[in-house]
Amino acid sequence: MSDQPRLRILLVGASGVLGQAVDAALSPRHEVIRAGSKTGALQIDIADPASILRGFEAAGPLDAVCCTAGTTNFPALAKVMPRPLADSAYGLGLTNKLMGQVNLALAARATLRDGGSITLISGILADHPIPGGSGAAMVNGALESFVRAAACELPRGLRLNLVSPTVFAESMDSYGAFFRGYPPVPVAAAALAYCRSVEGIGTGQVFKVGY
Amino acid sequence: MSDQPRLRILLVGASGVLGQAVDAALSPRHEVIRAGSKTGALQIDIADPASILRGFEAAGPLDAVCCTAGTTNFPALAKVMPRPLADSAYGLGLTNKLMGQVNLALAARATLRDGGSITLISGILADHPIPGGSGAAMVNGALESFVRAAACELPRGLRLNLVSPTVFAESMDSYGAFFRGYPPVPVAAAALAYCRSVEGIGTGQVFKVGY
Repeated sequence: MSDQPRLRILLVGASGVLGQAVDAALSPRHEVIRAGSKTGALQIDIADPASILRGFEAAGPLDAVCCTAGTTNFPALAKVMPRPLADSAYGLGLTNKLMGQVNLALAARATLRDGGSITLISGILADHPIPGGSGAAMVNGALESFVRAAACELPRGLRLNLVSPTVFAESMDSYGAFFRGYPPVPVAAAALAYCRSVEGIGTGQVFKVGY
Repeated sequence: MSDQPRLRILLVGASGVLGQAVDAALSPRHEVIRAGSKTGALQIDIADPASILRGFEAAGPLDAVCCTAGTTNFPALAKVMPRPLADSAYGLGLTNKLMGQVNLALAARATLRDGGSITLISGILADHPIPGGSGAAMVNGALESFVRAAACELPRGLRLNLVSPTVFAESMDSYGAFFRGYPPVPVAAAALAYCRSVEGIGTGQVFKVGY
């Protein structure tokens, strides 16, 4: 096996629980450029395409983009009423976690070197229900199918994968009440899936972590 | 086995290729109220929540809602640029086929009798790629995960299922060029899946038809 090259990796969402774990997993071998909506070397708000484009311009040439950011909400279905998308309880997830990450992937095409990779974040709710999880499910399912389809249309050997973890052991204080009966997984296991996406050769893959 | 009751079924998208087949499959045994954005006994534009609410008010008490309507587009990925959702090439599918059907399901809760069913339409592109299919994939994947999750939060024994067909034999003149190598299925097979959803007992199911 040949030596692996040192890669330039943009990590969006670097300050979060998952972002820090991905940083810790990749930075011993690669150059990690940390971005966040408010903190990090670069400011990127994935909900704002102009912010994404400015971030890529500032980052320069890249070998990989990893996203660990994306916001959605968890309305009880009984409280969700029929509304236009912009006013819907599902609007935040569709504009932020879904289209934010989709736009990040679309923008990355212009910046990534040949064979570069894009890794996005989804989650177990695409497959398994929790109370108030219908919005997150919708967004995660959309991301899974988008990644499988879009990966086949990317140019220059660019790759696109998705990491879909169950609830993190480190987040059980915050989210445990919503995930009773779901075995938690250490966030380091999800970070490994980012390594597999960035340093491997797969594309159009959904890496399920802990379920 | 007891005799099956005659049900009152609202069919949204009744004039389309699939709508006509669902109508033909259900109307011998049930009362089918036909709706469309421009034609039918009731006018319902699923992209407009106010139109959905007016349609349900006009329809009166129902045992089932079947949707065979939903518009998306098929942009080549290379032409899709990062944009806010409202200006995105993916906006039509997210507002019409996804949120239109989600809003139809949300509105149906107030009108359906106990144990009533909602059946929505998705498609094979959630799982399998075609050129220009990334937007349809996103929408179909979102619908699959939404249905699985939301079905578990519905009150009064209400049921929610999804029909996901491959390309119809009857549509090969229009869509055949996009589905080379995909075995087509007669639209009547997809109509049977609507019967299974409406007249069966399943919920949270994705009925794949022809693949």
